[in-house]
Amino acid sequence: MSIINGVNVDQLVSTVEAIKANPSLANFKFRTKTDWVEGGYSITTIQSFYGAGQEDTSRTESFTVHGDEPNVLLGTNKGPNAVEAVLSALASCLSVGFAYNAAAQGINLDALSFQLEGDIDLRGFLGLSDQVSPGYSNIRVTCRIDSDAPKDKIDALVNHVKRTSPVLDIIQRSVPVAVVVEAA
Amino acid sequence: MSIINGVNVDQLVSTVEAIKANPSLANFKFRTKTDWVEGGYSITTIQSFYGAGQEDTSRTESFTVHGDEPNVLLGTNKGPNAVEAVLSALASCLSVGFAYNAAAQGINLDALSFQLEGDIDLRGFLGLSDQVSPGYSNIRVTCRIDSDAPKDKIDALVNHVKRTSPVLDIIQRSVPVAVVVEAA
Repeated sequence: MSIINGVNVDQLVSTVEAIKANPSLANFKFRTKTDWVEGGYSITTIQSFYGAGQEDTSRTESFTVHGDEPNVLLGTNKGPNAVEAVLSALASCLSVGFAYNAAAQGINLDALSFQLEGDIDLRGFLGLSDQVSPGYSNIRVTCRIDSDAPKDKIDALVNHVKRTSPVLDIIQRSVPVAVVVEAA
Repeated sequence: MSIINGVNVDQLVSTVEAIKANPSLANFKFRTKTDWVEGGYSITTIQSFYGAGQEDTSRTESFTVHGDEPNVLLGTNKGPNAVEAVLSALASCLSVGFAYNAAAQGINLDALSFQLEGDIDLRGFLGLSDQVSPGYSNIRVTCRIDSDAPKDKIDALVNHVKRTSPVLDIIQRSVPVAVVVEAA
């Protein structure tokens, strides 16, 4: 069994081969359930998903995510806020992308870290200006890669991850969101 | 002091008035730091941000977010994955938007919950097809609102939140992301 960067490369290769033979195995549906508590505070649970042709059964318990706002935004700091959670998701996604693709290419990573910062003008959220987008105007990612691989291999890895990162794509592309409201 | 939905409406009104008088108070910078651990597992810490004209000092400790992949995606289920975290962030954002804007309009919410599902074809992430976007192709949000407010007020609230939600905007719009890589 070949393990690089904590990734089972044999399993990675067999997964890719299985999807090449049956592309429908690549269709996944991820899900979350969120209950508002009060003010800016909400609790999300995450457990089930569909993928590789079946409902997943590997998670015996759900994950719980707490979201809140800081005091200056009328919250009580019970968790990071939603736009901070977006940055966290982006860095988590890039982390997986670097670790897995490096493993596939035989590149050992000694360490990998990310610092992210996003600029937002809250006049959009507050409905004070139609000229201001509610979300981030810009996001900056600084990525520090510690590896003894040659620079051209690292550069190619970076370009591959930038092309294929799901969360980077979700942020950089316009993704359709359908919102349905049910009255209780 | 007027509290609706757990939101201090007096503070909300005074915040909006302060920003109308000095729009630069609405400029916020949010930040995250992420360390890859191994395989699909990473740990993000979230604490500092800039906003309302200064560095925030309200958080005495950082928040910690664990990201990982499920077994079928070569991970060890130490946390939700990055695209699940995006759905969680979206629901958290909509939750804040409903609670705050309802409070501002004098609408009492008895309960509020969200179920989200996103479709993704992992051939994009795996680099198996240039025709497949790496991120979600579609996201569906089902929102359940329990309130005795009249339907037309709830409809107007929904439309306002859909126009002004930061994370909904980040997902639906194309947001520029600059990635800089530092070799260690």
